[in-house]
Amino acid sequence: MATETRKRKADHIRISLNQNVQARRVTTGFEDIHFVHKALPEINKQKIDLSTTIFNHKFAAPLIVGAITGGTPEATKINATIAEAVEEIGLGMGVGSQRAAIEDKKLEKTFSIARKKAPTAFLIANIGGVQLAHGYGLKEAKKAIEMIEADAIAIHLNPLQEAVQLEGQANFERVLEKIGTIAREVDVPVIAKETGAGIAAEEAKKLEAAGVKGLDVSGVGGTSFAAVEYYRTKRKANIFQRRLGDVFWDWGIPTAISIVEVSQTVNIPIIASGGIRDGVEMAKALALGASLTSLSQPVLQVAIKGVKETKDVLSLLIEELKTSMFLVGADSVQTLQETPIVVVGETAEWLRMRKFNVDGYARRGRS
Amino acid sequence: MATETRKRKADHIRISLNQNVQARRVTTGFEDIHFVHKALPEINKQKIDLSTTIFNHKFAAPLIVGAITGGTPEATKINATIAEAVEEIGLGMGVGSQRAAIEDKKLEKTFSIARKKAPTAFLIANIGGVQLAHGYGLKEAKKAIEMIEADAIAIHLNPLQEAVQLEGQANFERVLEKIGTIAREVDVPVIAKETGAGIAAEEAKKLEAAGVKGLDVSGVGGTSFAAVEYYRTKRKANIFQRRLGDVFWDWGIPTAISIVEVSQTVNIPIIASGGIRDGVEMAKALALGASLTSLSQPVLQVAIKGVKETKDVLSLLIEELKTSMFLVGADSVQTLQETPIVVVGETAEWLRMRKFNVDGYARRGRS
Amino acid sequence: MATETRKRKADHIRISLNQNVQARRVTTGFEDIHFVHKALPEINKQKIDLSTTIFNHKFAAPLIVGAITGGTPEATKINATIAEAVEEIGLGMGVGSQRAAIEDKKLEKTFSIARKKAPTAFLIANIGGVQLAHGYGLKEAKKAIEMIEADAIAIHLNPLQEAVQLEGQANFERVLEKIGTIAREVDVPVIAKETGAGIAAEEAKKLEAAGVKGLDVSGVGGTSFAAVEYYRTKRKANIFQRRLGDVFWDWGIPTAISIVEVSQTVNIPIIASGGIRDGVEMAKALALGASLTSLSQPVLQVAIKGVKETKDVLSLLIEELKTSMFLVGADSVQTLQETPIVVVGETAEWLRMRKFNVDGYARRGRS
Amino acid sequence: MATETRKRKADHIRISLNQNVQARRVTTGFEDIHFVHKALPEINKQKIDLSTTIFNHKFAAPLIVGAITGGTPEATKINATIAEAVEEIGLGMGVGSQRAAIEDKKLEKTFSIARKKAPTAFLIANIGGVQLAHGYGLKEAKKAIEMIEADAIAIHLNPLQEAVQLEGQANFERVLEKIGTIAREVDVPVIAKETGAGIAAEEAKKLEAAGVKGLDVSGVGGTSFAAVEYYRTKRKANIFQRRLGDVFWDWGIPTAISIVEVSQTVNIPIIASGGIRDGVEMAKALALGASLTSLSQPVLQVAIKGVKETKDVLSLLIEELKTSMFLVGADSVQTLQETPIVVVGETAEWLRMRKFNVDGYARRGRS
Repeated sequence: MATETRKRKADHIRISLNQNVQARRVTTGFEDIHFVHKALPEINKQKIDLSTTIFNHKFAAPLIVGAITGGTPEATKINATIAEAVEEIGLGMGVGSQRAAIEDKKLEKTFSIARKKAPTAFLIANIGGVQLAHGYGLKEAKKAIEMIEADAIAIHLNPLQEAVQLEGQANFERVLEKIGTIAREVDVPVIAKETGAGIAAEEAKKLEAAGVKGLDVSGVGGTSFAAVEYYRTKRKANIFQRRLGDVFWDWGIPTAISIVEVSQTVNIPIIASGGIRDGVEMAKALALGASLTSLSQPVLQVAIKGVKETKDVLSLLIEELKTSMFLVGADSVQTLQETPIVVVGETAEWLRMRKFNVDGYARRGRS
Repeated sequence: MATETRKRKADHIRISLNQNVQARRVTTGFEDIHFVHKALPEINKQKIDLSTTIFNHKFAAPLIVGAITGGTPEATKINATIAEAVEEIGLGMGVGSQRAAIEDKKLEKTFSIARKKAPTAFLIANIGGVQLAHGYGLKEAKKAIEMIEADAIAIHLNPLQEAVQLEGQANFERVLEKIGTIAREVDVPVIAKETGAGIAAEEAKKLEAAGVKGLDVSGVGGTSFAAVEYYRTKRKANIFQRRLGDVFWDWGIPTAISIVEVSQTVNIPIIASGGIRDGVEMAKALALGASLTSLSQPVLQVAIKGVKETKDVLSLLIEELKTSMFLVGADSVQTLQETPIVVVGETAEWLRMRKFNVDGYARRGRS
Repeated sequence: MATETRKRKADHIRISLNQNVQARRVTTGFEDIHFVHKALPEINKQKIDLSTTIFNHKFAAPLIVGAITGGTPEATKINATIAEAVEEIGLGMGVGSQRAAIEDKKLEKTFSIARKKAPTAFLIANIGGVQLAHGYGLKEAKKAIEMIEADAIAIHLNPLQEAVQLEGQANFERVLEKIGTIAREVDVPVIAKETGAGIAAEEAKKLEAAGVKGLDVSGVGGTSFAAVEYYRTKRKANIFQRRLGDVFWDWGIPTAISIVEVSQTVNIPIIASGGIRDGVEMAKALALGASLTSLSQPVLQVAIKGVKETKDVLSLLIEELKTSMFLVGADSVQTLQETPIVVVGETAEWLRMRKFNVDGYARRGRS
Repeated sequence: MATETRKRKADHIRISLNQNVQARRVTTGFEDIHFVHKALPEINKQKIDLSTTIFNHKFAAPLIVGAITGGTPEATKINATIAEAVEEIGLGMGVGSQRAAIEDKKLEKTFSIARKKAPTAFLIANIGGVQLAHGYGLKEAKKAIEMIEADAIAIHLNPLQEAVQLEGQANFERVLEKIGTIAREVDVPVIAKETGAGIAAEEAKKLEAAGVKGLDVSGVGGTSFAAVEYYRTKRKANIFQRRLGDVFWDWGIPTAISIVEVSQTVNIPIIASGGIRDGVEMAKALALGASLTSLSQPVLQVAIKGVKETKDVLSLLIEELKTSMFLVGADSVQTLQETPIVVVGETAEWLRMRKFNVDGYARRGRS
């Protein structure tokens, strides 16, 4: 089992790096979000304060590296590299699914390397929500947390991936209840995290009520796990699964929409992820109501090169975010969240039809 | 006459298989329909109940194979193959126009083979509505039903096809009245079925009032019969008819729109057809208000290969439907029909202008 | 002068036939107009009555051939061909600008040939509105009418063409007043006709008040006279004028919009023209409120071949119109004008913003 | 320092002429603005009065040449050429940033040549707003004005450019206050001018309150300064800055939107600039509420050729503007500003969401 899991994870990384597994006919929706440029920012870009305190942790910038990998020698190296980079900059990271290591103690170090390299950064442990319907529970959650001395644990909700993958376990019965149990019993905040199909208002509400302390929306528009499965099954000549991967390639709630659905519904911090590729999109996510942004794919591509390259990319993203903030005259993340943005196109259409307040974004700050 | 009819039908199948006769500048509208993904489905995909009871018949899944063919040796084979496949899976099928066999008893077996191979499946007989204006009536309807021991009879309304085809009879005078007579007198439900141009609210209302028990919308967006005529006349170098086929290639009401027009107007079951190509679109059709979905072209393409291939395609479509249902947390067809969907773009624009309720779809299930 | 005018007209015909002078980034708007297909038309296509009585003249179908040419030997032939064709079918036609013949009696026969070949068809004389600001008046209008024993006279309003062409006279001072004088004094109805840039509500109102008895909208979306000038000046290497032709290539009110602007404003008959290319578009124009449709470019292309070819094209257009009417269950032009149509996209956006009733079209016929 | 500034300016001109530095995925929004063509203009194009009095200066047409260059021998030539052309036609021009000459008296003549060649034309001096946060003040403003005997001084607000360029000073602290001081103390009107990213309502209001007498919106959609920086850094292989240029390439408020944001907010004259490329767009800008239009890039391209070529382009633009005015029946700039225009698409969407009056434009002039 653990071997299979490891092999699947290795497949995922290889395919993500070598195939085009980005969304095809759907976008994140960020192209429908427009900042209202300030010709006269009245601030000094050098003095912009990017720091933000979420989950009682101070981040140097509202940026974390999304859960990527674990369980293999390459994964160890990737985790170490990212950990070193986020430690130096003062960010956070999530590790990949710890299931393999929970089941095989020898693999623990492929994850614990993250804490070793990042003694003070915000680290997020990772267990699969679907596992809670298949025997996992508080014990495994605690094990995952201890393994990396995590500051939070993300329960990954990946029904799309389970439904389209060869070995998938498409059963989420009573998962919510079990998330609630874990949320009550562990010492760190529990984050419910999608994996590329977005979170809707209805689920956000239930998860908040169950005691979850944060939501990572991971909307559609970036890397498609259905696409990854498409390529995995292609190699195995399984036409049946391949067509599933193809048909569901673009399934999900676009990231920008999911941020609004969730942030206008709950009062817990939102992590924006799913197809975010630059600092302007990070700024848009924050302006829409997210507290943190999370990127995976752009970091994975450099993490295999080295710590310096990884730090460079993270610094560049932060510089882009800072530049966006400067250009709307926002000297802090909070000010950014009060700056006007204009939401147009099908993103606005979806949100209005679902009864969210779209016009409010455009008018804030106008006297 | 019967020979000509047979020849025309053979032309249709050949052209459908070998030429691009899909809609060109119009779509089904399904791309404007978006599900609201559920990150936490709270159900077990394995336990999803796809069965549905319509016309007092229990279908293993809300899927039938649309009327395709009859009247020729190849047609016999195709009908036998599809019948065997739908029998084994527990679905239904409609046969092609029975006119040739009504007029020439020797051809009956090209249709009755369906019942022979599918003793319990839901079989739908087929007569042309336009024939009712040219001498057909109750007798012929009964003959068509008896020929395949049909569970229902579809009266095909194909004004577009009649209007653009070489031998067309573009006369629908008093057809509604005669449909009413048949609906009152036959023992099985009468279904009014379009053939690729969709049904509007106005006609749905009249047909329901006339006693029709089901409506098969068959909207525009999939195979275009005008396009088929374009290619038929192209071979015959009839520029006049060919241009008709060209100009009316995309004529009709898009399938998604027609489903809403009809389902918000009448209280009888709706069969969704017209350009449906995968299980996600099947799910969208059901969520919009259809009771059954019907596909023809994707099945025809495999039916010429064999029963196994046909069953594989039908099973795949069902698996895709089930996957869609899982991802919106719907464990039954009825629950799927209560799940929120967001209708955007020109599909929403059309529906609003025609005074249908569009916003309601997006808000159902939101407390 | 007359020679120059003739030469310019010959240039126009040659360029129209050999260069792409169709609108580039603007369309007629007909693609935003959708018929609501009737699955059950309840009529007999053979019995559809296409005849219509406008200006006290009965047309076999609501179709005329737009003003094309005159003044040269080739023009004589084209006018004769079109006249013979419309006479046989029972339609109407407008002749090209009669200015050259008004100034040079020898050229009269290039126009009067139309009446010779079409003793009973509806013929429309043609003078330029801009000439009314440069000396023309009642006398010239009467001369134009007498020359072809016209049933009506169209005063051509072509400010765009005058403004972008080398020899243009861009002065329309007191033209409205002079149109009024002519309208009061001549025995036939006066039609105000644009030449490819459309008529707005404001002008329609003034023209009706001045006594004009019909409006030919000639909107943008078809042949662009600015484009024709572009090619004329290209040959003469006049960069200055060429750029004018280029910048104004797509200037004007789209045909579908102009029909609505005008028909919701005045109570006189509307002739729809400008980029209409098939019978479905003719049907849309009539459904939007036009009383007649007028085509030029598609007829010019066959008129140089012969009478049979011209009649074939006109018959085909009528057959397409009849087919459209059949498919919406309209057995007369008047019924067609009461059938629902759905107006979407930027056409709907424009009309709503200008305070026209757009929703009404979609709801008529719905009980 | 002065040398560096000069070198940077030379880079800018070279890149603007040789690379594609136009906006990529954003437009000026002018394609969403439609004039309502007048079939009967009732005016004489020859009598159209294009003159307009703004800042107590009479312009022969509402057109000035935007700030381009200065400080180098080539710049001297370009300034001389443009000055001679605008003097002869009776327009105005802005010079490029005078910073180099303020710091190095030897360079003054590269700017003062403009006044020498244009003794009566409207000349606009130029200092950078960002310099006000770095030591500049009233003294430098006065020096800039005196250097060219300016009729006005534009304070350039270029936060985007400062933020993405290698040597940028992204500090705008207390710039507004200092603009206020200059506005109160200098004898000529102070214009606040963006440089390609547009001005929003909020900033317009503050600038008017500070005493600024005119606003030059310079919206996004034309030349992108971020793109210019992209190419500058490309040559220097600075990947970090290059990506900044790439990510911010299309940042800003589209020109058409910015004109509305500003003109519906303040009561001082608006200069429309940013991607205006022909006289129709000039007319649209004026109809939306601008008092003057300003073009740079199309003039720069001919200014390197000579005075005649420059005058030809300016005359052509004026002829296009006049033609547009003729076609909407506007015989003066003021009448043009009362003529109806229809605003559609995302431009209308943005403006409505920001609570500006969009429908009013379409209805003015309709009784």
